[in-house]
Amino acid sequence: MRTVGIIGLGLIGGSMAIDLKRRGFAEKVLGVERESVNASAAGKIGLVDEVVPYEDCIRRSDIIVVAVPVGSAVKIVCDILDRFQAMEAENPSSGRDKIVIDVCSTKEQICQATLYHPCRAQFVSTHPMAGTEYSGPWAAMPNLFDGRACIFADTEESSPKAVNIIESLYDALNMRPIYMNAASHDVHTAYVSHISHVTSFALALTVLDKERDEKHIFDLASGGFSSTVRLAKSSADMWVPILVQNRENVLHVMDTYIEKMNAFREAVADFDEERVRSLINEANRIKKIIR
Amino acid sequence: MRTVGIIGLGLIGGSMAIDLKRRGFAEKVLGVERESVNASAAGKIGLVDEVVPYEDCIRRSDIIVVAVPVGSAVKIVCDILDRFQAMEAENPSSGRDKIVIDVCSTKEQICQATLYHPCRAQFVSTHPMAGTEYSGPWAAMPNLFDGRACIFADTEESSPKAVNIIESLYDALNMRPIYMNAASHDVHTAYVSHISHVTSFALALTVLDKERDEKHIFDLASGGFSSTVRLAKSSADMWVPILVQNRENVLHVMDTYIEKMNAFREAVADFDEERVRSLINEANRIKKIIR
Repeated sequence: MRTVGIIGLGLIGGSMAIDLKRRGFAEKVLGVERESVNASAAGKIGLVDEVVPYEDCIRRSDIIVVAVPVGSAVKIVCDILDRFQAMEAENPSSGRDKIVIDVCSTKEQICQATLYHPCRAQFVSTHPMAGTEYSGPWAAMPNLFDGRACIFADTEESSPKAVNIIESLYDALNMRPIYMNAASHDVHTAYVSHISHVTSFALALTVLDKERDEKHIFDLASGGFSSTVRLAKSSADMWVPILVQNRENVLHVMDTYIEKMNAFREAVADFDEERVRSLINEANRIKKIIR
Repeated sequence: MRTVGIIGLGLIGGSMAIDLKRRGFAEKVLGVERESVNASAAGKIGLVDEVVPYEDCIRRSDIIVVAVPVGSAVKIVCDILDRFQAMEAENPSSGRDKIVIDVCSTKEQICQATLYHPCRAQFVSTHPMAGTEYSGPWAAMPNLFDGRACIFADTEESSPKAVNIIESLYDALNMRPIYMNAASHDVHTAYVSHISHVTSFALALTVLDKERDEKHIFDLASGGFSSTVRLAKSSADMWVPILVQNRENVLHVMDTYIEKMNAFREAVADFDEERVRSLINEANRIKKIIR
């Protein structure tokens, strides 16, 4: 009998709860949710079998998933490892087989913070690369993870047995595992995920600033604008800590991005059609990579 | 019996051909296509009843739709109005009831170029705001325009009868008409359409520049990145003339955009979490406007 405890019943935690239960990976799913309105929604929607206090969740779960924004996740994972250690000290057979995982969008800080913990082997650091621009228990949905990539960071620090069990958890979610170290993860995600959010936020700010008449935005927005600006709906609670924790990489990518925008701007300003054409042709190479 | 002639059998022209015929607005659809490979594809796909030479199309059609990139469209619309004038000079009853429309993404230049033409009343300038990032006859599809906005520019320069007929054409395509002058159109579309393409091109350039290993982009690209970079697949043939024709407005929007990016960059660089949070909260207002 396997019990999975999920701390944070938002988009990611809630969606994991749904699929881990209905696909039979978990016999029981416990949930912890600090915000009382979210907790009662999660109960009503039926995301988990029981909404329980934090301590109960850790005591009763075999696998604990920490699915809160990255700032709090670091503290919670460390606290859970401390509790594992205390349980083992009290009763050597208890706590030893428990596993905690995080699902954060940045990996370096959480991997560094836990590196020398005596129970580090019981922690598996993962990043399931799926999501939508919505958040909260209402945003949770079945099949969110199907076919997406899940990054496992610094697996050499986890026990092979724990890694194995977590691989089977993500297998139940139909995810493709990819293995890399925490530092590489943070560089790559700055490029393929974090920068897109920043460009969307900047786009929304530009349009809102200039188009005082919101009705015009609504009337005229084409499908192209909507898809480009979609990520600008993403929540500050999630994105402030990501951008700050991955600051060095994000700044580096933003600088390159601003350079490219300036190159485009100059080509248009100079009526340099050939240069605009060659920039667009170069950008078009993305076709071969992203369907 | 109403014959519609479509010049340029790409995404927009081809999709109009499909729906105008099957929804009964046109009894016959003639097509003109300069690129022989596209012409033969359009024939094979069955987009139009006949692919005909340019002169035949103008002689035989009641309504002519010019659906080529904006640079060539200006020349072609002027040439068609000249031909209407010549037909009317030769035989006063012929040519007088013919209508030509354009579907360009910029309106000021085409409306200025035609302003003093003796047959200006027979020209209706429109911009159906629909599309995908693909082009060519293979990209044409049914229902592309359903529910989208179609801008009618400077309708006071067209004959009311011609405007009426073109309104019924777009009604057959299930589009919502919006009326504005050409200059306002170009300002608004710079904000809600042109800038999103530029930000996507710049994003693709940034990622392609930095992620030398294309496999990583492919493996790691989340749904968010894909939707933000989607427009970067758009063709240079279409976008070079749009950006150049709408240069003043586009530069103005790009400058605001670069300012917003710099504000974001500074807030992240300064570890100013409160400022990052307030920028994201401000950007989130787009939620209320774009579903």
